[in-house]
Amino acid sequence: METLVFGGDERNLYLYEMLKEEIKDVRLTGFSAYETKYVENTVDTAEAINGADIIIGPIPFSKGQLINTPWNREQVKIKDFFSAARSGQTLLGGRLSRDALTLAQENGVRTVDILECEGLEVLNAIPTAEGAIQIAMENTKITIHSSNILVMGFGRIGKILCKTLRGLGANVYALARKQSDLSFIAAYGYEGVTLNSLPGILGNMDIIINTIPNVILDKDNISYLNKRVLIIELASKPFGVDIEESRKAGLNVLFAPSLPGKAAPLTSARYIRKAIDNIFRDTVD
Amino acid sequence: METLVFGGDERNLYLYEMLKEEIKDVRLTGFSAYETKYVENTVDTAEAINGADIIIGPIPFSKGQLINTPWNREQVKIKDFFSAARSGQTLLGGRLSRDALTLAQENGVRTVDILECEGLEVLNAIPTAEGAIQIAMENTKITIHSSNILVMGFGRIGKILCKTLRGLGANVYALARKQSDLSFIAAYGYEGVTLNSLPGILGNMDIIINTIPNVILDKDNISYLNKRVLIIELASKPFGVDIEESRKAGLNVLFAPSLPGKAAPLTSARYIRKAIDNIFRDTVD
Amino acid sequence: METLVFGGDERNLYLYEMLKEEIKDVRLTGFSAYETKYVENTVDTAEAINGADIIIGPIPFSKGQLINTPWNREQVKIKDFFSAARSGQTLLGGRLSRDALTLAQENGVRTVDILECEGLEVLNAIPTAEGAIQIAMENTKITIHSSNILVMGFGRIGKILCKTLRGLGANVYALARKQSDLSFIAAYGYEGVTLNSLPGILGNMDIIINTIPNVILDKDNISYLNKRVLIIELASKPFGVDIEESRKAGLNVLFAPSLPGKAAPLTSARYIRKAIDNIFRDTVD
Amino acid sequence: METLVFGGDERNLYLYEMLKEEIKDVRLTGFSAYETKYVENTVDTAEAINGADIIIGPIPFSKGQLINTPWNREQVKIKDFFSAARSGQTLLGGRLSRDALTLAQENGVRTVDILECEGLEVLNAIPTAEGAIQIAMENTKITIHSSNILVMGFGRIGKILCKTLRGLGANVYALARKQSDLSFIAAYGYEGVTLNSLPGILGNMDIIINTIPNVILDKDNISYLNKRVLIIELASKPFGVDIEESRKAGLNVLFAPSLPGKAAPLTSARYIRKAIDNIFRDTVD
Repeated sequence: METLVFGGDERNLYLYEMLKEEIKDVRLTGFSAYETKYVENTVDTAEAINGADIIIGPIPFSKGQLINTPWNREQVKIKDFFSAARSGQTLLGGRLSRDALTLAQENGVRTVDILECEGLEVLNAIPTAEGAIQIAMENTKITIHSSNILVMGFGRIGKILCKTLRGLGANVYALARKQSDLSFIAAYGYEGVTLNSLPGILGNMDIIINTIPNVILDKDNISYLNKRVLIIELASKPFGVDIEESRKAGLNVLFAPSLPGKAAPLTSARYIRKAIDNIFRDTVD
Repeated sequence: METLVFGGDERNLYLYEMLKEEIKDVRLTGFSAYETKYVENTVDTAEAINGADIIIGPIPFSKGQLINTPWNREQVKIKDFFSAARSGQTLLGGRLSRDALTLAQENGVRTVDILECEGLEVLNAIPTAEGAIQIAMENTKITIHSSNILVMGFGRIGKILCKTLRGLGANVYALARKQSDLSFIAAYGYEGVTLNSLPGILGNMDIIINTIPNVILDKDNISYLNKRVLIIELASKPFGVDIEESRKAGLNVLFAPSLPGKAAPLTSARYIRKAIDNIFRDTVD
Repeated sequence: METLVFGGDERNLYLYEMLKEEIKDVRLTGFSAYETKYVENTVDTAEAINGADIIIGPIPFSKGQLINTPWNREQVKIKDFFSAARSGQTLLGGRLSRDALTLAQENGVRTVDILECEGLEVLNAIPTAEGAIQIAMENTKITIHSSNILVMGFGRIGKILCKTLRGLGANVYALARKQSDLSFIAAYGYEGVTLNSLPGILGNMDIIINTIPNVILDKDNISYLNKRVLIIELASKPFGVDIEESRKAGLNVLFAPSLPGKAAPLTSARYIRKAIDNIFRDTVD
Repeated sequence: METLVFGGDERNLYLYEMLKEEIKDVRLTGFSAYETKYVENTVDTAEAINGADIIIGPIPFSKGQLINTPWNREQVKIKDFFSAARSGQTLLGGRLSRDALTLAQENGVRTVDILECEGLEVLNAIPTAEGAIQIAMENTKITIHSSNILVMGFGRIGKILCKTLRGLGANVYALARKQSDLSFIAAYGYEGVTLNSLPGILGNMDIIINTIPNVILDKDNISYLNKRVLIIELASKPFGVDIEESRKAGLNVLFAPSLPGKAAPLTSARYIRKAIDNIFRDTVD
């Protein structure tokens, strides 16, 4: 059984190092632009892909028609990847696109979406929250302690963000729609905010962190903000803030996608390692 | 519009007092065995039922074929209640039984199950957790601080219990099945326990609080417990511990149902007050 | 080396049980009114005192001219205790009175005040805080969560109380005089209160817990309280509340001395066990 | 009454801006190398010093024989500062050196050491803790959550650091000598470490933050560390780690002095503002 770690961000490097200590046949490719010591380990991409039984790919797997290989000198197309693949292989990756899934099926490659592994997305909320807090620390002249911070959304990331910000002593405001979420928000001691009560608190916010992929801070709500507020955007398009209006208003909006691989790649790699274990254990059962 | 508060535990008394300060036509009945000052307020039950537009009944509404009126001298049958009711009334109560719902429909009484109000059950987890902790304090010779406490189940009550016990400095162990729950448990800093790892930690537990209505502590698992452990049972039948086996083993099992109305009736009445507001606001919308 | 555990509250019983598992020659006396199994262990008091090399006495050691033996059928006078003692013995006890110290010196008995052992008084703040919280839970109709609670004093007990109440979700107000304490109070996220700002917040308090042996709640301050407030008095005379004025005002004041031995005697006994270890280790060094 | 804010780091800039909104006669100097808008406000240094009634200087006031003016183009000697000063002025600054105090006295300048203001040093522990955490986040590949972090020293900064790290979900180890500190450490739920138990835990530490100006990590203790550990040094010379030995061992040691003015100058300026209020209020009383 040969395993290949292919492309992705630093998480895959750390994952490769962990696997090396546990299993014999593990190779790495897709890091030709990274520091020297890893370049030595890289091998011819097509050959490596073809030779592996299990391929651990990037999270997310692709960007447009290209595999997500930020540390590789050349770019690899999804279709070239599957040309090199062969029937019977298992491919693990994050958020596999429709194109990738189709090509995998056509080529007899079994796929597992790591991010659909129950539990990993929750764990990823931890480095995401810390990454957002680091950004907040680096981009304000105030302490998190005693700051007024609004977290928009109370899903996985919202929950962990609120907990962590409270742990740092912030005054935490959490925007949610569902009554049951608002009750949990009250139980945890945060200030619950609804779309109705939002305008009334916006002017006092020092920092706003958004996790909702839906415009909440539209032109109207933006008009209530003070100009010193820092907005950290964790959600994907169409984002929680109307980008054009925020520019007109001169707001400081920072986009912070893919934090787990940036803020704490080693911790995140450990989570993936554990998720892979669960995947293969469940397969065996 | 006349409102009647009818039966139930102390929560309904506090609810009545709150309503009295806000609306004019509110009456109370079903507390003839309570302290004097409330007896004065009580009126003939059948007449009171018949005269009201809105009836706020007990939580839970009934026990077997009887309305749940622990503070009343006489017992009131469900069918007698609906004989006194009349078409067009609105009845609010908790966990309305099938019989009650059928009779209500036959008599043209509109029903609202307060406990199904999104949010109230979550809020009720707060007095439930505090009530369980009070019981633990009263029945052990140790502090909650530094104790090993296992919470079985990570639903509403489990989540709030874990948070509160941790706030008191306990070593919190949480039993869950779902990977996503186990990830949240890790994120919040508790020790995650699965059915597989359960036997390995049972011997070190000082206190176990169960929220799962399914036997987890069967004969086998009971054999791993130390004899000094205190078990607090919050779930309904068939309970999380095999009762017969626990007796054979000489374990200390305390049953603690319906804590919100016992541990903090005033706070719980405020939650209900708020839930009723939400119900009527939603109705109007 | 024979050790005698003599009198005191349940802590000494648990201490005796722990010692029994570790050392051979340990005896117990002063519990003739406790449950049967301990009566068997008791021996003639004077003989037991005379025969021991180390005597672990009560905390506090005495009340007036009597040794503190709440679980003994007869009362033992301090002077009778030292009549039975002999030169060369070591006596450990809590808050040894001047009379006791004089008699010890006259009789050649070495004394160690356990409570003066650095660290024990801090640890005792843990069961004291939990005991106070248990009393609050038992004597209110509200949850600690979301309650407004004033802790008067920010010494050992005040610090641990604030932390624990906050862990339960209370809105914690802490009264202190020193600027450095007020800064710590702000850093920990509690509301700092000074003697000047006290009147302004008293009306909103649901519970007040006092740790200062100096009247803070005098007639004037009492006039600002709401009548439903629960006052828990942990300090010794002259107390933090003017008793006579509080009675005139019809306030609910509960006195709660010596909580460690009541709320969590087993945990407290463990602390003492550890303190004794430190004492003897330091002696050897 | 004319007030001059003179030199120092960004805290003094924010302080100047706050004062401008409150009092009329306030000037700023010592920031000629800062952004344009502040340069406009600066005035001739000697003239400004001479004209002021109250001078708010840097924290710390001086470095060697120079006033601490990191944002000024020219350097100002302590003795030149006092040549420009005049009798009757009040000078506020941090950690005023012996030379500065002597010259002040000779020139009839009244001095107030802001850092000696009870409470300010405690508040400064908040931005110091956050600054240290930011450094840790920026220099590790792991999350603070679940990391093993040793805080050496349990004074003002140690206490707040432990609390904040715990709030982020770290496994917090705290090194202290006093039994009472170790008891507080246990009460707060951190792992207490003594000089004796230190070697046994060092190998598991991911991050060490030192607050003790005394070499704790000597050659011997360094030998127990793992090579990946990050050491953040907050104390002044002679530091908590033997610098030469740490270099030989190839350890990653980051020095992080004066964090309040770097990590959160606006929050820190607010603290100083409040401290100045206290100083002048106490003076008036």
